[in-house]
Amino acid sequence: MEKKDIPINVVTRIPLYLQTLNQMARDGVGITSSKILSEMLGITAAQIRKDLSYFGGFGKQGSGYQLFTLIDELQKILNVNRIWQLALVGVGDLGHALIHYHEFARHGFEILMAFDKAPGKIGKKVGTLIIQSYDSLPGELKKGSIRIAILTVPASTAKSVADLLVESGVKAILNYAPVNLQLPDDVYIQNMDPIQSLQRMTFYLEG
Amino acid sequence: MEKKDIPINVVTRIPLYLQTLNQMARDGVGITSSKILSEMLGITAAQIRKDLSYFGGFGKQGSGYQLFTLIDELQKILNVNRIWQLALVGVGDLGHALIHYHEFARHGFEILMAFDKAPGKIGKKVGTLIIQSYDSLPGELKKGSIRIAILTVPASTAKSVADLLVESGVKAILNYAPVNLQLPDDVYIQNMDPIQSLQRMTFYLEG
Repeated sequence: MEKKDIPINVVTRIPLYLQTLNQMARDGVGITSSKILSEMLGITAAQIRKDLSYFGGFGKQGSGYQLFTLIDELQKILNVNRIWQLALVGVGDLGHALIHYHEFARHGFEILMAFDKAPGKIGKKVGTLIIQSYDSLPGELKKGSIRIAILTVPASTAKSVADLLVESGVKAILNYAPVNLQLPDDVYIQNMDPIQSLQRMTFYLEG
Repeated sequence: MEKKDIPINVVTRIPLYLQTLNQMARDGVGITSSKILSEMLGITAAQIRKDLSYFGGFGKQGSGYQLFTLIDELQKILNVNRIWQLALVGVGDLGHALIHYHEFARHGFEILMAFDKAPGKIGKKVGTLIIQSYDSLPGELKKGSIRIAILTVPASTAKSVADLLVESGVKAILNYAPVNLQLPDDVYIQNMDPIQSLQRMTFYLEG
């Protein structure tokens, strides 16, 4: 089966399974089952088994999953059994916070370069990175074969920066700007807008 | 129709429509249509009309939507035609960034209080807020009738802090901790874990 034929909801859940399995591994668990995962995640065991079946069989019916084997398989499926180097664009408060976010390194993501357009920021150090100008962005991204970027610019410049990223070879954007970006079909976007996420909850809250 | 009977994917898309309409309003647009929204969002016009039909009719077939009427209606649906006051727990880098995030105020969300467990942080000022200890959390949240919280604590303490929030009356948690929280059915959670979002894209990227 080709990747594009796997339902998006399945692809959405696999990282959640991996997160939960990693959590169990840290707690010293060695074997798990769709039933245990079901209880931890509030997703039916049948759904979990069906999701995993898209990628072949894992473990025998009734005997559960070897935790480390399953983690390893899910990492391969998600293409994260390797290091991914990222660029971050927009070194404001949120950009700073993400540069210092230690979970990235733990999961194989490394912010390798940071860019901003404010002349006053260029050349300054954040963590181990030197903030670079947009002028150097295309060259640096191509040189580093960077295909993933984190976008932490204001809404007003998000579209033009995203276009620049795509022209520079980026194929995946983690978008914190509160803008719905229209990009070529072969570029993946995940939106991290907290406003939309809050509104998905206020919908259910009583006035 | 009751809220619980509206498909979650519909509820997920309404904030996206609202974001796009707000963007159009800022660009001076006065009338729109499911066709225009469709082109902007890459969602079929039929899907958009179907999503909106859950909440009654908006505009006449063929004549499009009055932008401000539609924005107003969607705000009412999402329960955001009002101010929501929030508590933030965990004033690290990300907590700081979110306290300073100006989009919250623009959309009716106000971070009213901030808590941390580090003795060295308590009493310090961040923006206009004074960081408070966990001891004061239950009392302050109840006093302020706070029902929404932003969780920016490390994974290791996320569960216990979330439980404390729920005990203190919180019904909605914007969760930045990389943990799948198990909470009562009447508490809503939106997870903002960048690792999972990155993995949803690396899945599609060529090795």
